[in-house]
Amino acid sequence: MTDPFVVVGADAAGLSAASKFRRERPDRDVVVFERGQFISYAHCGTPYFVEGRVSRLSDLLSLSPADVDDRGIDLRRGHEVTAVDPETKTVHVQTPGGTTSEQPYSAALVATGAHAVTGPFDVSELAGAFTLHGLNDAAAIDAYIADPDEYDPDRADVAAVDRDRVDRAAAHPAPDAAAIVGGGYVGVEMAEALRGRGLDVHLFQRSERLLPPFGAAVGDRVASTLTAHDVTVHTGTSVDAILGGDRVEGVRAGGRTVPVELAIVGVGIEPATAVVDGAGIDCGPHGAIRTDRYGETSEPDVYAAGDCAASRHAVTGEETWMPLGLTANRSGRAVGATVGGDPTPVGDVAGTAVVKAFEMECGRVGLATETIARDAGFDPVSETVTAGSRSGYYPGAAETDVTLVADADSGRLLGGSIAGTDHAAVRIDTLATAIHAELSVAAVERLDLAYAPPFSPVWDPVLVAAKVLRGSLES
Amino acid sequence: MTDPFVVVGADAAGLSAASKFRRERPDRDVVVFERGQFISYAHCGTPYFVEGRVSRLSDLLSLSPADVDDRGIDLRRGHEVTAVDPETKTVHVQTPGGTTSEQPYSAALVATGAHAVTGPFDVSELAGAFTLHGLNDAAAIDAYIADPDEYDPDRADVAAVDRDRVDRAAAHPAPDAAAIVGGGYVGVEMAEALRGRGLDVHLFQRSERLLPPFGAAVGDRVASTLTAHDVTVHTGTSVDAILGGDRVEGVRAGGRTVPVELAIVGVGIEPATAVVDGAGIDCGPHGAIRTDRYGETSEPDVYAAGDCAASRHAVTGEETWMPLGLTANRSGRAVGATVGGDPTPVGDVAGTAVVKAFEMECGRVGLATETIARDAGFDPVSETVTAGSRSGYYPGAAETDVTLVADADSGRLLGGSIAGTDHAAVRIDTLATAIHAELSVAAVERLDLAYAPPFSPVWDPVLVAAKVLRGSLES
Repeated sequence: MTDPFVVVGADAAGLSAASKFRRERPDRDVVVFERGQFISYAHCGTPYFVEGRVSRLSDLLSLSPADVDDRGIDLRRGHEVTAVDPETKTVHVQTPGGTTSEQPYSAALVATGAHAVTGPFDVSELAGAFTLHGLNDAAAIDAYIADPDEYDPDRADVAAVDRDRVDRAAAHPAPDAAAIVGGGYVGVEMAEALRGRGLDVHLFQRSERLLPPFGAAVGDRVASTLTAHDVTVHTGTSVDAILGGDRVEGVRAGGRTVPVELAIVGVGIEPATAVVDGAGIDCGPHGAIRTDRYGETSEPDVYAAGDCAASRHAVTGEETWMPLGLTANRSGRAVGATVGGDPTPVGDVAGTAVVKAFEMECGRVGLATETIARDAGFDPVSETVTAGSRSGYYPGAAETDVTLVADADSGRLLGGSIAGTDHAAVRIDTLATAIHAELSVAAVERLDLAYAPPFSPVWDPVLVAAKVLRGSLES
Repeated sequence: MTDPFVVVGADAAGLSAASKFRRERPDRDVVVFERGQFISYAHCGTPYFVEGRVSRLSDLLSLSPADVDDRGIDLRRGHEVTAVDPETKTVHVQTPGGTTSEQPYSAALVATGAHAVTGPFDVSELAGAFTLHGLNDAAAIDAYIADPDEYDPDRADVAAVDRDRVDRAAAHPAPDAAAIVGGGYVGVEMAEALRGRGLDVHLFQRSERLLPPFGAAVGDRVASTLTAHDVTVHTGTSVDAILGGDRVEGVRAGGRTVPVELAIVGVGIEPATAVVDGAGIDCGPHGAIRTDRYGETSEPDVYAAGDCAASRHAVTGEETWMPLGLTANRSGRAVGATVGGDPTPVGDVAGTAVVKAFEMECGRVGLATETIARDAGFDPVSETVTAGSRSGYYPGAAETDVTLVADADSGRLLGGSIAGTDHAAVRIDTLATAIHAELSVAAVERLDLAYAPPFSPVWDPVLVAAKVLRGSLES
C-alpha cells in the first residue's frame, strides 16, 4: 500500500491541499496533523469578532472536524509534528497522550502557518496584553473588553476554545482605554474594532506613517480617518514598555506614560518553520520555506504552502514572503493537485491587499511605493491623483486617491495603491490584473473601463492616474 | 496662416478634441460648430434627472460656453454643418441667420454623435410620447410627469432649454402610468426613474430577456429586481402601437391595450452621419464612420470620433460600433492630440458597460454571451457561477453572478458579465483589463486579487468563475 500524503497543519493551506488531493485521488489516504484544536478558520475575521460585527466565534469557522471527516481526510487534532525527516520519508509526531510516533509519507506538506511576533514585549504574563493571532486571542480580547457582569460566554461558542483563558480575561473590570502597538493591518483594523466597543484608543506607529507598504497617500488618509473617529494616532512614536503589575496599567512611549488597561501588540508575524529545523530544507527571505513553482521544497516530496512558505513575486520574479489568505488557499490547493498527479503551479503573488478603516477603503498591489520599487532594482516614477469615484452630479461621489508606480525605462506598471470611501478597495483588482499581465502605464491608460454615473466617472480614477503618470514618464 | 482645425459637434468627442488640440497647439485655431444650443453634457445622467436624484438640469452640464471660450476655442452654436468637402477641404455651414458659408480646414473632425431611433413610432406629434436623447427630452419628460400645479420650472435651469416644449409638457395633468418600449439601458434606467416618480410602469421588451448583450444571468436578475420593485415586465412582447389623440392614452402590445399616459421609446440609437453623405467617406457596421487607429476616415485629414464613429474591438480586432461615453471622450482627445502633431491611437473598445437597476448592479465586457462569441467566429464555452461578494460571516455579503465566456481552442477569455447588489459593477473592470491583456481563463484563475472580509471572500467571484470555466475547458 502506498504511504499516505501527510499534511502538517489544518488551516487554509493544509486543508485546501488535503481536500483537493482526496477529490483527485479517492483511492489514496491523506493524514492531517494539527497540534491545536482549531482547524480552518477565518483569521482575517477576528477583528470583526472583537468589534462585535460578527456575533459568534463559530461564525469564523470554515470547516468543522466532521466536514473534514466527510471528505475522507484522516484529521488528528492535538498531534504535534516535531520533525520532518526527508531521509526516511517520515514525520515525527507527538500524540495527545504524550507518546511519540513516526508516520511514513509518500509526500508531505508543511502548512504550519505563522505566529505573531511581539518585539520586546512579553504578552504572555500580563493580563490585558495580547497579540491577535487566532481564535483564542480573539475570544480572550473580547472577554477582557466586556464588563464582567455583562459578558456573554456564548460569544465564544466553540468547544475548542481555551475556556480557562477566556474566563480569566472576562473576570477583569472592563477597560476604558487601549493602546495598539503597530500601525499595520492588525493595528488599523483593531483601532476600528476597539472604538466600536467604546474604548479610548491610542495607536502607536514607530515609523512616520501608518500602513507603510500602502504608501504615503493611503497612510495619510487612514490617519485622518482614524483621527476623525477619535482614535489618537501617535506616528513616529515607539512604545518602550507596556506597564503594569497584575494587569496592564499603561504604556510608555515618546517619553510619557499613557494610562490604558488593554494593550494589543500588532508588530508582525513570522513563518512557523520549527518543524523543518534540521531537515536540510532551505529557507528564503524572512525565514519562509523556499519552494519551487509547484510548492516543492529543496527536499523531494516535501512541499510547503501558506504563511510558512515563500512565493514568487509577479513583478520582480524574485522570491518573496506574502502571508495572505488567498495565497494560502491557492497554494495549498495546487499542492494537493500536484501530489495527486496533476502538476499545478502555486501561482505568483502580486502582494494585493485591501484594508478597511471605518469608512475608508484602501488597497495596494505590487511595488506600491517608489522606495519599494527602487529597492527591487527599478528606476521608479510615481504619481498620485485625486479623482471622483462617480460622476460629480451623482450622489455618493467621493474623492479617490490613486497612486501608480512605473519603471522609467520600460514604462511598465510596477504597483499602485488606492484609498477612498466609495468602491475604492475593489478597484485595486484592476491594477492587480494589469500587473499580472505586465501592462505598461500607456496600456492601462487605454483600458476600456466601465462608466455609468452611479459607479464611475467617464474617466475612472485609475485611468486618470495612468494618464498623469504616462505624461510624467514621457517628460 | 494655417487653416483652422474644424470640429463638427460640441459634445464629448468634439470638445475633448478641441481642448486637447488647443493645449498642445496654442498657436493654432480651432473652430467648433454646434447646430444646437447645448454643449458638453452628461447624456448618461438624464435618467437620474428624470428620477429626481439629480435636482437641476444644469448639474448635467460639463462645460459652459464661457469655459470653452476660456480654453481659446472658437465655439459657434446654432451653426449647422451641412456638408464636408474633402476635395476643397471646406465644410459648408448654415448660420443662425439662415445664410450659408464655407469654412476651410486644415483638418476636420466629425463628432456629430447619434440620434435616437423610434422604430415604427412617431413620438414627435403625440403629447406624452418621448425618446430620451438629450437634455431637451429629459426636461420635457420631467415636466410632463409633474403635476402642473407643482412643477418647478427651475428644474430646467439652463438657458438653452426648449422652454416652449417644456411648458407644453408641464401643462398636461400628471400621468399615472407609463409604458417603456425597449428593455436596453434606457429602458431599464427609466423604469427605475419612473418608479421613483411614483408611476405605474410597464416595460416592454420584444425579445425574451432584458439587456440582451449582458446575457441570460444578468437579464433574469434584472427582470426579477424590476418586478420586485413593482415594475410590470413584459418580455417577448412587441408594442404594436402607441395610442392616443391629443395625448398618449395607451399602448397596444401582445394583443391587448395597456392604458398609460406616458410612453418612452428606447429602442436604440444610430450614428448621425448625414454630414458626410456624398463626401465619399466610408461607413462601416451599423452605418458608423469608418476610421483607422488614429480616428482618420477614408478621406485624408477628415477624422471621426464619438458616437458617429466605428471603433476596433479589443477581442475580435474587427470594426465595431460601441457608442459609449468613455470612447467618445478618449477618441476625441486622441484626435485632438494627433491633429496637434502627437499621433495618438484612439484605442480599442472592449464593450465594457455597467448599468444600475435599483439595487442591482450589472456589468458586461467583450463577447459576453456564447451567441455573440459564436457570431464573431469563436468556438465558445461559458459558465455562470453564483458566489458571495464578501466573506459569508461579514454583514452585507450578497450573491454575485459571474458569467465568463472563453474560446475552446485557445482558452482565451472572450467576455463576461456580472450581476449582484454588492460592489458587483466595479468588478467588471477586472475582466475588462484581462480582456485587453488577452489573458487566458487559466491566467485569470491565477490572478492575485484582493481579499479582506468587508470587500471580498478569499476566492473572489471572478476567480470562482474562472476556476469553474477552466475545468469545463479541460473536460
